[in-house]
Amino acid sequence: MLPHPIKKFADLFATLPSLGPRQATRLAFYLASRGKAEIAEFARALAALDQLQICKECFAHYENTPKLQKNTETTRLCEICSDPHREHNIIALVERETDRFSIEKSKKFRGRYLVIGEIARDGTLNTEQKLRLAHFKRLITERFGKAKEIILALNSTTLADLEADILLSELKTVTERITRLGRGMPTGGEIEFADEDTLGGALENRK
Amino acid sequence: MLPHPIKKFADLFATLPSLGPRQATRLAFYLASRGKAEIAEFARALAALDQLQICKECFAHYENTPKLQKNTETTRLCEICSDPHREHNIIALVERETDRFSIEKSKKFRGRYLVIGEIARDGTLNTEQKLRLAHFKRLITERFGKAKEIILALNSTTLADLEADILLSELKTVTERITRLGRGMPTGGEIEFADEDTLGGALENRK
Repeated sequence: MLPHPIKKFADLFATLPSLGPRQATRLAFYLASRGKAEIAEFARALAALDQLQICKECFAHYENTPKLQKNTETTRLCEICSDPHREHNIIALVERETDRFSIEKSKKFRGRYLVIGEIARDGTLNTEQKLRLAHFKRLITERFGKAKEIILALNSTTLADLEADILLSELKTVTERITRLGRGMPTGGEIEFADEDTLGGALENRK
Repeated sequence: MLPHPIKKFADLFATLPSLGPRQATRLAFYLASRGKAEIAEFARALAALDQLQICKECFAHYENTPKLQKNTETTRLCEICSDPHREHNIIALVERETDRFSIEKSKKFRGRYLVIGEIARDGTLNTEQKLRLAHFKRLITERFGKAKEIILALNSTTLADLEADILLSELKTVTERITRLGRGMPTGGEIEFADEDTLGGALENRK
């Protein structure tokens, strides 16, 4: 009974995290009502996401700008991993890419990142996460022997303590120091919602 | 600092109702991680929304199928407004198109619809809503003199009582009867969340 394009859109977009079938259906009607020119603009913005590359060292998405492309056409590195002014053997491990951007905004961190993906509620690592960790450990060992420091930049939740234990046992052999974000993060808080000062403080007070 | 395609997507999609900037940013990263083929599929589903037409009598979106196109190429009517087996002078006024589909699913209504759009919280009608009402009243007057019945199929909220008063004063001159959905709708309930039996009962008990 729903027009086919609405149904198709709703079925597909309802598979996205945090969008249910009802919200997806409403979104479809709303977008339809914006008219041809705006629908095309939304579709272009979505299609343009395929221009992003995944950094082969930190697994963050990055835009393949002509400048970066020249630097990294064989290495496929993001703007941070290909920056010689960053400290490459100090690494902040984050679950989400949005956490990486929140930390960058604090301007208190001069190392680089490892994006691991959201860890399951039971604290186990999935295949992709295990591959990323294995790749990362090999990279650190080959290049530096050991990292100077790995910061487990996880949310300050109860679950994260379990995650930290697991990551600690995975990573302790490849780093001199392993730390977590220090006081400054409110208990139960999520990185994404912390302001820049709080995050900066948490980085300074890491232990 | 966010890659340009992520920022562009997030800025645009954050303008959609019920999507905030954070959710839009996460959605962008999530879609990016699904890879080129799936990104293209999402973009196609979105772009295909421009195939929808707006019915010039009830203002619902409809798909311009070849069959319907033949019937309505000059008239631009949806599958309900162009159906001679529906009672064209019994009209359910709905705010949202999704409400129209919920009522259709109850299979208890053989009239047709007028989609008015969501009414503002202060109960005033916007320009588009006034145009739709004026267009509709002219159509009813020219075709039937008066409608047999207009059902104000509004949500059962306190706000809707105010809306009903306003619509009643707009429409009472063009219809013999004006009703609202009857008992069966739980107080505070929204049409979209009612099951088919509840909606069917509410249609049967309309007063």
